[in-house]
Amino acid sequence: MGLTVDWRLYLLLDTGLIGERDPLALARDALAGGVTVVQVRAKDWPAGRIYALARALAPLARDHGAACLINDHTDVALTAGADGVHVGVDDLPVAAARRLWPTGVIGYSPEGEVDARRAVADGADYLGVGPFAATGTKPDAGAAIGAAGLAQIVAAVEVPVIAVGGLNAGNAAMALAAGAAGIAVGSAILAAADPAAAARQLRRLVDESLERR
Amino acid sequence: MGLTVDWRLYLLLDTGLIGERDPLALARDALAGGVTVVQVRAKDWPAGRIYALARALAPLARDHGAACLINDHTDVALTAGADGVHVGVDDLPVAAARRLWPTGVIGYSPEGEVDARRAVADGADYLGVGPFAATGTKPDAGAAIGAAGLAQIVAAVEVPVIAVGGLNAGNAAMALAAGAAGIAVGSAILAAADPAAAARQLRRLVDESLERR
Repeated sequence: MGLTVDWRLYLLLDTGLIGERDPLALARDALAGGVTVVQVRAKDWPAGRIYALARALAPLARDHGAACLINDHTDVALTAGADGVHVGVDDLPVAAARRLWPTGVIGYSPEGEVDARRAVADGADYLGVGPFAATGTKPDAGAAIGAAGLAQIVAAVEVPVIAVGGLNAGNAAMALAAGAAGIAVGSAILAAADPAAAARQLRRLVDESLERR
Repeated sequence: MGLTVDWRLYLLLDTGLIGERDPLALARDALAGGVTVVQVRAKDWPAGRIYALARALAPLARDHGAACLINDHTDVALTAGADGVHVGVDDLPVAAARRLWPTGVIGYSPEGEVDARRAVADGADYLGVGPFAATGTKPDAGAAIGAAGLAQIVAAVEVPVIAVGGLNAGNAAMALAAGAAGIAVGSAILAAADPAAAARQLRRLVDESLERR
C-alpha cells in the first residue's frame, strides 16, 4: 500500500441507499463532516459510470485528506485515480488484485478468521469485518458477530480492521473498544436528514472513543 | 496488442445462453470445431467466478491457437492470463483499459462511425459491430445494420471488424463479403444440438467465403 490511510470513519457510499440524490454531493457533505474514507459501492451501475464518479470523487477525497476506494472493480479504481479497491469473497481474488496494483490500498471482507489470515497473507491492507450488528441494508450479510467476533479477527491479523454492518452512534464506541481501527457506515450518514451533521457527530464519537482506548 | 489474432470465427460464450451446461466443456467443443476466439460474457456472474473460468479457458484456447477474451472486466482478464478484454459504451473507457493493459487485445462495440473512430484512436484493436441481423439473444441491441451498415464501419477504421448479432450459417457469407474479418456467434453454436459440429460447419463456411473475397 502506497498510502497511509486514516481509517476512523469510513463511508460506504452505496448507490442502493442514495436513491435519486447526487452521490458526489453526498460524499462532499460527508467529507465536510469528517469522513476519512469513502468507498463507492455501486453493484447496480455499469463500470463506466463508476469510473466517471471515481474520477470526480478521488480528488475531492484527497482535498479532505481522505481516501477514495472502489468496491469490486480494481480496473476502474486503478485507472480512475482512486486510492484502492475493496473486494469480497466473490470478487477478484486479493492476490490477483495485489499483482495488478502493487501500490493500491486493497481491502477485503473475510468470512471468518482463517479467511482473514489468508487474505492478509495474499496482500490485503485492511479488513472490513461484520456484520457488527443487525442491519437492514444487507439482509443477506449473516448473523451479527458483535464485539466478541470483531475482537477475534482483530487479534488474528496485524492489519487495521474496520467494523461494518449496523454501525451507528449507539454502538460505534463498542466496536472501537473491541479494537476496530474505524467504523464503516452507510445509512447512518446517507439516510440522515443532514448527512454532514450525522458525519460530524459520528466522527466526534469515534475520536472520543479512540482517545479513551 | 501483443498478440496476432485470427478473427475468423468468434464465439460469444454468453452465460445467459448456456443454462446449466459447463461453459468450459462448451468452449472445448467449439474450439475443437474451429472457433478462433472465445469471449466470456457473464453479465450475471461475480468477478471471482469469471476469473476462475478465465484461468481454465485461457490455456485451453491457447492450445488451439485461439484467443481468450473477457467481456467488461479488464482486471479479471489481465490477471487471469486471458489475451484481452472486450468493452462496450457503458464499461471502462477504451483509453483507460489501454493504459492499464498496454499489450492486451482490446475490443470495443461502437455506437456508430464517429464512436468507432474514437475508440480506435483511444487504442481499440478491433471492433465488434452490429447487430448484423435481428437477434433474439440481445433484444435491446437496436435495429439491424445489415451489410451496408457493416461496410460503412469497415471503411471508416483500419482495425479488424467482427460482425455480431444474428449471425448464422445463412448470413455469414454476406457479412464477410461486406468486409468483416470474422463473425461472432453465440446461439448458432451454443444452442446447436452438436456445438462442435455447428462450429465446424460455420468455420468451413467462413473459410470458403474468405477465399472467395
